Amino acid sequence: MRIVVLAGGIGGARFLRGLKQAAPDADITVIGNTGDDIHLFGLKVCPDLDTVMYTLGGGINEEQGWGRADETFHLKEELAAYGVGPEWFGLGDRDFATHIVRTQMLGAGYPLSAVTEALCDRWKPGVRLLPMSDDRVETHVAVELDGERRAIHFQEYWVRLRASVPAEAIVPVGAELAKPAPGVLEAIAEADVVLFPPSNPVVSVGTILAVPGIREAIANAGVPVVGLSPIVGDAPVRGMADKVLAAVGVESTAAAVAEHYGSGLLDGWLVDSVDAAAVERVEAAGIRCRAVPLMMTDLEATARMAREALALAEEVRGA
Amino acid sequence: MRIVVLAGGIGGARFLRGLKQAAPDADITVIGNTGDDIHLFGLKVCPDLDTVMYTLGGGINEEQGWGRADETFHLKEELAAYGVGPEWFGLGDRDFATHIVRTQMLGAGYPLSAVTEALCDRWKPGVRLLPMSDDRVETHVAVELDGERRAIHFQEYWVRLRASVPAEAIVPVGAELAKPAPGVLEAIAEADVVLFPPSNPVVSVGTILAVPGIREAIANAGVPVVGLSPIVGDAPVRGMADKVLAAVGVESTAAAVAEHYGSGLLDGWLVDSVDAAAVERVEAAGIRCRAVPLMMTDLEATARMAREALALAEEVRGA
Repeated sequence: MRIVVLAGGIGGARFLRGLKQAAPDADITVIGNTGDDIHLFGLKVCPDLDTVMYTLGGGINEEQGWGRADETFHLKEELAAYGVGPEWFGLGDRDFATHIVRTQMLGAGYPLSAVTEALCDRWKPGVRLLPMSDDRVETHVAVELDGERRAIHFQEYWVRLRASVPAEAIVPVGAELAKPAPGVLEAIAEADVVLFPPSNPVVSVGTILAVPGIREAIANAGVPVVGLSPIVGDAPVRGMADKVLAAVGVESTAAAVAEHYGSGLLDGWLVDSVDAAAVERVEAAGIRCRAVPLMMTDLEATARMAREALALAEEVRGA
Repeated sequence: MRIVVLAGGIGGARFLRGLKQAAPDADITVIGNTGDDIHLFGLKVCPDLDTVMYTLGGGINEEQGWGRADETFHLKEELAAYGVGPEWFGLGDRDFATHIVRTQMLGAGYPLSAVTEALCDRWKPGVRLLPMSDDRVETHVAVELDGERRAIHFQEYWVRLRASVPAEAIVPVGAELAKPAPGVLEAIAEADVVLFPPSNPVVSVGTILAVPGIREAIANAGVPVVGLSPIVGDAPVRGMADKVLAAVGVESTAAAVAEHYGSGLLDGWLVDSVDAAAVERVEAAGIRCRAVPLMMTDLEATARMAREALALAEEVRGA
């Protein structure tokens, strides 16, 4: 079975670990969000790609969900001693190596997809990890800061400001000119099922879908497309998805997110058991819906979620 | 008193610490060798400049004489895990910060002299540290390896091969087109004395002198130029200066190094007490010479050496 997964960072990475357990023989291609990529200290940092790679490759800091295990922060301390920031982005000594290798390869002319493949040669994540695009896409957030309307990098909004001010707009800068990375459209065309993990529907999955050709390829693939709600009981399971949903005019409920994707794209949708009341509304929107436990409390619970998603896909296929 | 010092790495840096103690009120300008600079992992590394900066700024690893105190090597471990080398160059996590800041500033268009000044803003070495040139100069060493004649970077010769094969030639690639960095010729013109510390006469002081204009400025400054022999009892005090002296056809003795600089450049020369027999030969070459203890065993001994050098300079001036 060939499965394509559109993944953001922590939520996507953890779901993928469950999916690998649930479908050990599946051929899994992950299309990773690169809209949260950022240049720091002259280095190209790809937080979502790295979170997937480290999580599936066994190098993740399990407690925080991002960054490396057994990490130290001496380099960052020294940068701060030089007065070189930003200090709000937590790059550890081990993590820096990834960004240095990536930056050096990009500088030598390799596209991000080739660089990602080279990095994965070490980590062996057990999936094929593709950036959504080799072209630069950078998610910016329009906010009002100190009485002034400004567009800031998503990481500044998310990490520095912790989404503490309202996002007035979310713009994946460069997306309209970006091309899907080599292999992305091919993987979608050959997929047996496409899954949207409980990732942020705006700044993770939404950014991937903003690359021209990807949404269309998924909608026209003729295979089940099934998603899992990142909203449980009207609140994000983790992260601050509600802040960015408001910016695109979507209420923070499991049903509203399904409607936001829409029946033209989504065939099936899983909501958490506490949101069982949403099933009727989602199905009324033309999307097959089931209520099951959606908390990724451990690997087994996550694998069960993945099995439910695959079961719903089979149900869609048989319908 | 304005003192100009031409410095390489460890020997130059340790001598400077003694000089600062010997002449606390002096205005010291250090012209640093950049011929051993190397690009590693896409970063610009300036080993000699950093050794001076860290040593005088209190950040040096005292035991090894280069690199940072309280250092860790996690980033380097990770680069090795990615299969990215070279592994023979020991960059620590704290040290990496210096190279990242430097590379970022160079990429933004600042010349190396401005970058060095910015780095020194943090370290406050108590001297004005100038790179010999803002232009790229890279010392290459011609060697025979595996039956083939090759030119390799000085660091590869020095650090990886530990000078274990004969150096057939030493070439400061790019030196002939390099211009002295801003402030270098001015500092020499305004100096009251110029000192050559017990640094490597070929790949440290010699490389600085290879930048067109610097040798002439020193020779024509009309002030005492005094050096300290890095060779004691026919062997280098530290390092492997004998290996590179052979490449330029100079025997590894205190007298031969003085003659290599020549009386057109050098007015005074200090040899170690064990080399007292060399005094006559050096003076016969037209260079005033004294035999004094030249082992930098501790700060006080080093300060005494600096005082002897300054005293010899005064003797030259009064002659």
